[in-house]
Amino acid sequence: MTNERYERGWKKLMEVDGEGGERVISSLEDIAPDVGKYIVEFAFGDIYTREGLNLKQRQLVTIASLTTQGGCEPQLTVHINAALNVGLSPNEIIEAIIHCTPYTGFPKALNSIFVAKRVFEDRNLKISK
Amino acid sequence: MTNERYERGWKKLMEVDGEGGERVISSLEDIAPDVGKYIVEFAFGDIYTREGLNLKQRQLVTIASLTTQGGCEPQLTVHINAALNVGLSPNEIIEAIIHCTPYTGFPKALNSIFVAKRVFEDRNLKISK
Amino acid sequence: MTNERYERGWKKLMEVDGEGGERVISSLEDIAPDVGKYIVEFAFGDIYTREGLNLKQRQLVTIASLTTQGGCEPQLTVHINAALNVGLSPNEIIEAIIHCTPYTGFPKALNSIFVAKRVFEDRNLKISK
Amino acid sequence: MTNERYERGWKKLMEVDGEGGERVISSLEDIAPDVGKYIVEFAFGDIYTREGLNLKQRQLVTIASLTTQGGCEPQLTVHINAALNVGLSPNEIIEAIIHCTPYTGFPKALNSIFVAKRVFEDRNLKISK
Amino acid sequence: MTNERYERGWKKLMEVDGEGGERVISSLEDIAPDVGKYIVEFAFGDIYTREGLNLKQRQLVTIASLTTQGGCEPQLTVHINAALNVGLSPNEIIEAIIHCTPYTGFPKALNSIFVAKRVFEDRNLKISK
Amino acid sequence: MTNERYERGWKKLMEVDGEGGERVISSLEDIAPDVGKYIVEFAFGDIYTREGLNLKQRQLVTIASLTTQGGCEPQLTVHINAALNVGLSPNEIIEAIIHCTPYTGFPKALNSIFVAKRVFEDRNLKISK
Repeated sequence: MTNERYERGWKKLMEVDGEGGERVISSLEDIAPDVGKYIVEFAFGDIYTREGLNLKQRQLVTIASLTTQGGCEPQLTVHINAALNVGLSPNEIIEAIIHCTPYTGFPKALNSIFVAKRVFEDRNLKISK
Repeated sequence: MTNERYERGWKKLMEVDGEGGERVISSLEDIAPDVGKYIVEFAFGDIYTREGLNLKQRQLVTIASLTTQGGCEPQLTVHINAALNVGLSPNEIIEAIIHCTPYTGFPKALNSIFVAKRVFEDRNLKISK
Repeated sequence: MTNERYERGWKKLMEVDGEGGERVISSLEDIAPDVGKYIVEFAFGDIYTREGLNLKQRQLVTIASLTTQGGCEPQLTVHINAALNVGLSPNEIIEAIIHCTPYTGFPKALNSIFVAKRVFEDRNLKISK
Repeated sequence: MTNERYERGWKKLMEVDGEGGERVISSLEDIAPDVGKYIVEFAFGDIYTREGLNLKQRQLVTIASLTTQGGCEPQLTVHINAALNVGLSPNEIIEAIIHCTPYTGFPKALNSIFVAKRVFEDRNLKISK
Repeated sequence: MTNERYERGWKKLMEVDGEGGERVISSLEDIAPDVGKYIVEFAFGDIYTREGLNLKQRQLVTIASLTTQGGCEPQLTVHINAALNVGLSPNEIIEAIIHCTPYTGFPKALNSIFVAKRVFEDRNLKISK
Repeated sequence: MTNERYERGWKKLMEVDGEGGERVISSLEDIAPDVGKYIVEFAFGDIYTREGLNLKQRQLVTIASLTTQGGCEPQLTVHINAALNVGLSPNEIIEAIIHCTPYTGFPKALNSIFVAKRVFEDRNLKISK
């Protein structure tokens, strides 16, 4: 049931990425709308709704994957917002990026930290230390 | 205090990676012993002992980073064992790898799943579904 | 309709990857069967069945993507076989890999060429020059 | 004959990349002119003039390689223009990028799609669906 | 002795990266100060102060690693400045990047060359040919 | 003059890579001989014969680039041999790989160190510490 997957995915997308996710989907509308559909159906309808990991755990995994890939700053912006949306603290997000340094090196960690910095500033959040 | 960092790191390495970690350090002994020292002191003494994320969360991040990089099968073997050591279930490990597919594609996820498969077999573990 | 997507995907998987694809799916059965399901439904049911590019063009794109990623030798084996299955000649496959060298460098191209070499030998094919 | 390779390469560069390629070469003039020379002689004089794949096929391969690498947005701009120059339709270009998603994940595909979007807008092209 | 490592690292950071390095550390202050500390202690206190390679050799290695990774333009800016600080000529820096082309392809080399171009312009340096 | 470039390149390939390089070229003979030709002409005839960096410096750059890419163990084997051929000591080679760790992380450095270990053992070389 494509519709059922889409609806389930859209609901999850709204819960996780919120406005940032909606913006991605709508920015695809006039160029590659099916990619938006696949993100909703596959990434959110199939994957994010799976059991076995909760949404906080999923966002830790997402941040680690995007940090490690490099060159994914727009997606990191969406998913660091998402991490906050599902209840990770700014400190836990930074901690996840720091944890990547021995595995992927400082440059990619720095790029990711500076994305987080901007997201936290936009949301008037402070790292509590 | 180098010694204090090393001791703290070694204790954490044993807790997390156990035998697999010890094997990495000792395999470096006659070629690049300082790299073993840095892994113990920096990766484990500095990073793994930080607060803010528990060891299960850290292993989710590690597995996502290694899966995404590609070409890190030996390190994945060590860290999927480590994930089990710190209390992640086989199912949670596989779930973390599956969660990477929309971000990094099927090929790297498959490579990582087949590493997990071998680790689970070596430890006589079953995925419970 | 999950079943409809799965059936359409399975048919396409058989047409493209044949036995090699079947082996991937069945090797996932006892460790991550849903990943096999997603490969069938999403990669083959959704993507490969799209219009706009024919199967030869799709395999050129696949080979270029896998060559460029690096570390995907098992997937390259499957997809170089697939490229032959859908009618690309050995020469066109090698040509696609050669075309990647200015973009991704010689090392990854060499790794990919040697995978192709083994596939062609297994199928008793000759490069015609 | 260096000159012969250069001339053949320049002619091919003009045919494929046009103005965008000329701009790359001339931007290298006061910093690394030999890299411009190698692009003309090797990438275009040696590789692009080979038989075995036509220019449309070569641009599909190029787009897949650049999409997969990540961080190559300037080169994607040049080569999506080139893809149009050699006769690929906007739809075929987007389709090639979509085909990469199961192999390299959504983030890199999205980055590439948004480059294509800007190129199509600059050329007043519409995706026909 | 953490303090000793930090002091040794800071001195080396100032010698190598100068102002650019100081800016990185201070930009981390309110978001992830420990990452700044690790860069000083580990990257500079432990690694850069090692014997076996001099600073010119270390900067060649750094530039090759950052060029090859891709997506590290901010770090390349710092380290191309650093390469000049430790006595590499603009020509040697460009030469190191050119040497990467057969291994990592033209796109990443071009991205790195254009970073070098901006650094040289900021410092009123000319490539002598 | 293709012949002149090829001859110059071949001579340089023999000087740098020796037998290991010859083996790569001849392994390409029946599958993609032109790639062997391009390695000789472009990588060695054009790039390695450039002035501005000596062969020891070039091998440091090569090792850093291959270590950082990951998945290039066969090429690292050739080029760690080459590094020794042009006069780098085992210690300098290991040092170059260690220098990559803050930039590219421990996993890729470890993979590269273990390649070096095998090369040194094959040549009965010892790291002198």
